[in-house]
Formats: sequence, C-alpha cells, structure tokens
Amino acid sequence: MAERRVPATLDEMRAIVAQFPGPDQDAAQETAAREAALTKPAGALGRLEEITHWMATWQGKHPPTCVHPRAAVFAGNHGVAALGVSAYPATVTAQMVKNFVDGGAAVNQLCRAVDADLRVYEMALDEPTADFTREAAMSEEECAMALAYGMMAVEPGIDLLAVGEMGIANTTSAAALAAALYGGDAAQWVGPGTGVVGAALERKRAVVEQGVARHKSAARDGFDLLRRLGGRELAAMVGAIIAARTAHVPVLLDGYACSAAAACLAAVDAPGSEVGALDHCLVAHCSAEPGHRLLLEKLGKKPLIDFGMRLGEASGATLAIAIVKAAIACHTGMATFAEAGVSGKESS
Amino acid sequence: MAERRVPATLDEMRAIVAQFPGPDQDAAQETAAREAALTKPAGALGRLEEITHWMATWQGKHPPTCVHPRAAVFAGNHGVAALGVSAYPATVTAQMVKNFVDGGAAVNQLCRAVDADLRVYEMALDEPTADFTREAAMSEEECAMALAYGMMAVEPGIDLLAVGEMGIANTTSAAALAAALYGGDAAQWVGPGTGVVGAALERKRAVVEQGVARHKSAARDGFDLLRRLGGRELAAMVGAIIAARTAHVPVLLDGYACSAAAACLAAVDAPGSEVGALDHCLVAHCSAEPGHRLLLEKLGKKPLIDFGMRLGEASGATLAIAIVKAAIACHTGMATFAEAGVSGKESS
Repeated sequence: MAERRVPATLDEMRAIVAQFPGPDQDAAQETAAREAALTKPAGALGRLEEITHWMATWQGKHPPTCVHPRAAVFAGNHGVAALGVSAYPATVTAQMVKNFVDGGAAVNQLCRAVDADLRVYEMALDEPTADFTREAAMSEEECAMALAYGMMAVEPGIDLLAVGEMGIANTTSAAALAAALYGGDAAQWVGPGTGVVGAALERKRAVVEQGVARHKSAARDGFDLLRRLGGRELAAMVGAIIAARTAHVPVLLDGYACSAAAACLAAVDAPGSEVGALDHCLVAHCSAEPGHRLLLEKLGKKPLIDFGMRLGEASGATLAIAIVKAAIACHTGMATFAEAGVSGKESS
Repeated sequence: MAERRVPATLDEMRAIVAQFPGPDQDAAQETAAREAALTKPAGALGRLEEITHWMATWQGKHPPTCVHPRAAVFAGNHGVAALGVSAYPATVTAQMVKNFVDGGAAVNQLCRAVDADLRVYEMALDEPTADFTREAAMSEEECAMALAYGMMAVEPGIDLLAVGEMGIANTTSAAALAAALYGGDAAQWVGPGTGVVGAALERKRAVVEQGVARHKSAARDGFDLLRRLGGRELAAMVGAIIAARTAHVPVLLDGYACSAAAACLAAVDAPGSEVGALDHCLVAHCSAEPGHRLLLEKLGKKPLIDFGMRLGEASGATLAIAIVKAAIACHTGMATFAEAGVSGKESS
C-alpha cells in the first residue's frame, strides 16, 4: 500500500479498470453458511442480509467489518456556473468547504451520528474548470490528476467509503454526463438542483444541450466524457471508487452528481466484459433530483433509501453507513439456532 | 407519572383515546424556523426534515431529542398456533424470549448498533389465547389487562419508542384483524409469515376466513376486534402506543403484526374525529409479508425503509431509530447561514 504508484494518465487508469478484482467467493460462501444458521427464518432480514453479503465479498473477508467507515467529500468549481445555472453563486462552494471544516454542515452531523470519519478535499476552487459549452471542461492531464487526487481518499484501514461532492453547478455537469451516456431529451436529465426554476431552469437545460452536442460524439469513452463534461470533484469521486475497488473497500454512492460520475466509470468497462466496474458500489439513496431515478435504472442499481434528499455532500451515503453497520452487527452478533437452543423450522 | 392510574377496562381505554393530545404547534413553528436557517437549500434533507418536525411536534418541544430510545418487544402465544398455521412450533416463542434475554437475537444487535435500550415483555406464554375460530381470543378483562401491561413500556425519560412483537402464529392474527377491518379476500391479507407454503398456507387462509366470519360483525369497535382476533402481544403493543401518546413519546411501528394491532387503535377513533390516533406513529418499514403494503396504504402511512425484512421482534423499528437520530443530529447540530457566513440563495 505504501508503495502504491499513482497513475498519471487516463490510459493508466483504463489499465487499472481492466484489471479490477472480482468478488471473493470464499467470503460469499462463509457468509451464506453463517446466515443460514442464525436465529431467524431464512432471509428474514431481507436487504440487510444482501448488504452483509456484499460487504463480505468486496472486502474479501468473513466476517466483514464496518469499524472504520469514511465519508469523502470532494469540492470543485465549474466554468458553467458563470452561465447562471444555479440558485447560488459559485463562491458558496468555498464557503461550504469552510463549513465542513468548521463542523457545521449536514455531513458533519451525519458522520458523528454514524461514527464515521470525514475527509474534505478542496480542489482548486479558484480555478473553475472550463465552460463545457465552448471546450472540454478539463485537459487529459487535469482529469488524470483529479482522478489520482481522489484515490487518496482510500487510505489503509478504512473498511467502507461514502463518496460525495460539493460544487455549485455540478448538477448541470451531472445532467450533461447522463444525457451524453444514455441519450434522451436534456429535459429528462435536468432538474432544479439547489432550486433553479423558470428562466434559470431553461438556461440550465440549454447549457446541457450545448454541452452534449459539442462533446458526445467526440468522446472516446467514459473517462473522456468525464473529462469533457465533468469537473474535478466528479473525476475525484471516480478516482476514489477506483482506488476502493483495488483496495477491497466497498463504496456507498451518494446522489445525482456522484451517480453520474460513477456512470462514466461504468461506461469505461467494455461491453461484454466481466469487470462490473461498479459492482463494489451500492447506491445509498435516490435523490429528489428527477434525473437520479432514471439514472439509477440505467445503472441497474436499487437505492437503499428514498427520502427525497437533494443536498449532496455525501449526506445520503453517510446516512446509509448506519444501515451497513446494523446489517453487519446482526450477522456477526446473532446467536445460531444451536447456540440459542431454538427449534428450527418444522418439516412440512 | 408516578401517580398514573392504569386503566382496567376497555371503556377506560376508549376514554383515554378520545382525549388524546394533539401535535404541539409551538414546537412545529420553532422547528420550521430553525430548519429554514440551516446551511442547505430549503427542504434539501427531504424526509429527514419531516422526521425532525414529527419528533418535535409529538414530543412537544424544540429541539426534539433522541437520546433515550427504547425498543419494546412483547411476546405472546396464540390458540390458533395449534391449527398448524406456522412453520415453527409454538415453543419457539419462549425460546426466542430466552434468546432476547441472552442477547442473541437480531433486535439485540440492532439495539446495540443504534444505542437503544431493549425491554422484553413475556406474556403468559404457557397460556395461549383461545382459538379465535371457536371463540374470542381474549375476554374483555384479559384484553384490558394486556393493554395495560403494554403501557408499562413507556417509562419516564424515554424519548422514542420502537414497538414490536414475537409470537408464533401472530401473522395469522394480523391477517384476520386486517381482513375484518378493511374487507377483501383473506388471500390478500395472508402471507407466508415465518415461511408457510402449500397446504399450511391454505390452512392459514381458512383459519383467517373462519375467524373473520365469526367475529367481524359482532365486534363493536377496534378494541373489541383486537380482543376477538388479536393476542396478548398485539394488545400490549396497542397499550404501548396509547401510553406513548399521552406521555409525548413518538412511536416507530414495526412490521405486519404491529401495524395490524395499530390499525385496531386507528379504528377506535370515531369517523370524523380529529384525534388521529396514530399521528404520533411512523411506520419504520414495509415488510415482505404481502399484506403489509396494502395495510399501510389503508392506514395512509409511508414506510421509512423498504428492505423486504420479515422478522418482527421490532427489528425494522429499531433499525429506523438510526434514521431518527441522524435527522435530529442534522437539525440540532448544523450551522445557520449567518453562523457559517454562507451566502443565501440568489434572488432570481
């Protein structure tokens, strides 16, 4: 781990994705065997059992643990913010980073509530990415650097990573990525974000359409699309997801911007490949941003929570850490039928 | 509280329900005012904000707290268990109570995970209620005693109550209550419970039909139905819900048996009344038992979690305590825009 070399180009990132490790079958079998012996009807803990199984197979160990979860929040600024696509000025990104550092944001309270650590990564907030309606948001080098920066969030010892972001105008970026990846009208991918309505919402839609028109056909794959329509914090989330896979750390994805970034990684995976680039990720929640539900359908991911949250900053992913902890607590702490002297199911 | 007189008859219970306190409007206003000032777009925490509002209005204070949550599990046995409606023998109820006391059940691990205390109430397990296909499950006196017993779960100091049960054959009781309250074929209310299939499932359906035919038209209200088709643990859950209302303790309802018991209390409330007997209750989760989703529609309750759990023993309600804690942590701990120096929404 100490010797890990940080990849410097998108091609090096592609090579890592092509070599992603798969699920650990021994851990899967051990999990299933213990689950069947616990004092409950088979399957009675429903999705909690699936979560435990997922944690074990992607950590590659049984029993799985959730004692050092981390929330990683990446913050970046976007050239398109200057086009009036958000209800808040771009200066709010830096103000919210200060709020994270001072402990005043929602994610701070949620980290305390679920006993997770929090890392906030501020990414050149004074240098927004380029306006993607005119040129690519980032150069190859900038994008590779942002990906590599995100990989830092996965440090030795953490056993679960909640990934999120802060960046005024980044739901515009997310909508453009989703529209470029999956097609359809821009309108179905563009929502109010922090709360834009009326003319500003129309503007946001036009900006997304222009970005897709300029970059969609030119992009060679998901990484290239991420570079063209994404942003530093979106690329960093992808980097964190990549590093987590190679370090056997399961990932909880947050809201719309996070899922759109992850979708770029899914698109890097070649059709017919067995890599399943997001198989080590669960989607924590479905946000109120209307495009998110559709995006999750495209990704084939079923969210854990559906609370109409739309804050970003890893808030939904961090909340879901409580559910993962509860799942593992049941699996590891419950008595077996034999230990408890409880009669099994009657043969019928 | 020390002087509280325990009601001894169903009519005394009816009088308490008729006098239920309503939501606290001052707490509601204070909650809304603070929520609007916190460093997030208005409404961005979605259902977490609704939960905080609900806790404040039913605790009757701002800020609301969730520092002494309790899971209360009531265990009882049922005459209809002898008719072969469960996959497990009735002796499992007592075995599982021992498992709760020994700390080996799912609810024990969940209480530890969410830092809640656990109380288990064993209710005359050696004396199952009467077979409701032949006579009422309980006399008036037995039912009133079980209700009063359940009221004990609400002790001074607790600020949230998760209510659940253990009782072999009690999904049969729940299905009969739901069918009697809301009509429709028994088949739509009868599910596998702990895992019955085939002939046993047919038997379970027939038992429910017989129970409904015998008691539905004779029952004068929800309490009387509870007495006829319910069981001690179901009545005790209703007692706990009643005591919680009068003590300003919000309640998390668990699965199918718990919701069916609660539905009896909703039915005690006179049509057109403003009491809203279950307004201080949230439904924690929608269980895999197929009748539960329909029952929640009838109750007009939207579950917090939809994980396909079907264990009972307050497992879903206890898990949801983590969500309530997170909601309150955000509301009480977040900085305001003014405190954090974050710019508000631009006027557009």
